[in-house]
Amino acid sequence: MIYKRKVQFYETDAQGIVHHSNYPRYFEEARGYYLEKLGYPYDKVRKDLKTDIVLLELIIEYKKPLYFGDSFEIKFGISEMDKFFFSFEYTVIKNSSIIATGKTKHACLNRNTGKIISIPDILRSKLHGT
Amino acid sequence: MIYKRKVQFYETDAQGIVHHSNYPRYFEEARGYYLEKLGYPYDKVRKDLKTDIVLLELIIEYKKPLYFGDSFEIKFGISEMDKFFFSFEYTVIKNSSIIATGKTKHACLNRNTGKIISIPDILRSKLHGT
Amino acid sequence: MIYKRKVQFYETDAQGIVHHSNYPRYFEEARGYYLEKLGYPYDKVRKDLKTDIVLLELIIEYKKPLYFGDSFEIKFGISEMDKFFFSFEYTVIKNSSIIATGKTKHACLNRNTGKIISIPDILRSKLHGT
Amino acid sequence: MIYKRKVQFYETDAQGIVHHSNYPRYFEEARGYYLEKLGYPYDKVRKDLKTDIVLLELIIEYKKPLYFGDSFEIKFGISEMDKFFFSFEYTVIKNSSIIATGKTKHACLNRNTGKIISIPDILRSKLHGT
Repeated sequence: MIYKRKVQFYETDAQGIVHHSNYPRYFEEARGYYLEKLGYPYDKVRKDLKTDIVLLELIIEYKKPLYFGDSFEIKFGISEMDKFFFSFEYTVIKNSSIIATGKTKHACLNRNTGKIISIPDILRSKLHGT
Repeated sequence: MIYKRKVQFYETDAQGIVHHSNYPRYFEEARGYYLEKLGYPYDKVRKDLKTDIVLLELIIEYKKPLYFGDSFEIKFGISEMDKFFFSFEYTVIKNSSIIATGKTKHACLNRNTGKIISIPDILRSKLHGT
Repeated sequence: MIYKRKVQFYETDAQGIVHHSNYPRYFEEARGYYLEKLGYPYDKVRKDLKTDIVLLELIIEYKKPLYFGDSFEIKFGISEMDKFFFSFEYTVIKNSSIIATGKTKHACLNRNTGKIISIPDILRSKLHGT
Repeated sequence: MIYKRKVQFYETDAQGIVHHSNYPRYFEEARGYYLEKLGYPYDKVRKDLKTDIVLLELIIEYKKPLYFGDSFEIKFGISEMDKFFFSFEYTVIKNSSIIATGKTKHACLNRNTGKIISIPDILRSKLHGT
């Protein structure tokens, strides 16, 4: 899937580039877009399934900077999924040039108990369909 | 009261200065420090009194920039308080020079109902003592 | 003009609502959108005119919260402009309900000297046209 | 080295925990503290050596959440260094319990050319001394 975005001024730092701490936020936006496109947006996951999706691992390789005003896209999708865990992989691209790559690993939590649960079936089947 | 702070790199923007959206965060830090010094930290307010403190109004005048590495202080205190509302005023100072001034107005919410409540007595008496 | 936006998860706080420090960022996004629609995006202002637009004053009244997943719009436009200064006013709206109102006052800086300059003619004429 | 910190309210999200995008910021704070303790703060590196330190890789494993009001510490230090690159490793600890571990890989850039340079001798000798 592809998620498109522009750099906001408040995301830049005194090096004149996007601060690295925004990339995990861009990835989160992409995942939110993903769930929305599946017809099961994350706010619905949280309300209907009483499930939080948490981040367990984050890996980012920064290859080139993004600047204020840049338009970029994130190509991404699910790379792994088992009973409890699923991972996304991301490539941040600007003008056909790779800006960064990343990977995130997630689990689902029961919002009442705070315990990790197996991925709810309805969410799993949605994720599988992609 | 005085709250001291250093500028972090991730708070700067491509103009090379602290992005304006960090000042409300600095004020929040100052208020947190304030409640802590009163012996009634905000996490205790939230847990014991089931009370959220919310922001109703924010005013900031930006006079001079802050740069990465700057040390600054916030002189601040309660400027108004009635049954339901209380306000803080802030002066951000670097090397005896005024960087910014600000004001915030707050109310207390019952965390279960989400409704505004009169300022809890214990919190009021703490705030009055200052 | 109207700028549309969805709340991102990373913009929420432990009260379950959008943290107040995101509203100045939403306003900045709206202004960026505005300059883009005028055909004079802010990155061009910075590069071609060697001009930074800085924030001098910020006022926000928070009336109702925004939650994760909310879609909202910002109705906004220029409310004042003289030789040196210009102001925007904003109304944040969700489902016809006013969430917040705001005002920001700005000046232009020469990026080399860091001094306030009169609003560059080309920028002024663009802003006037709206 | 150990860097101590408290969780700020604006760092929490609607799950009631510190949003994962703050950990890279905590690591940056720790590195800033580190350079300061070496007697060569990063703003001096940037001004005197005309050198930016950039992030090339980021790895974080999130094991337990941090909550508003938590006090935590980051145990960290340089784990690798060659002519061009150096890495830090971090352990985030609360009450003797490991909250997260992380690693960052860095290079130095000439601020005028934007090109990667070998680690400046003075910076290298400082980093080696630790």
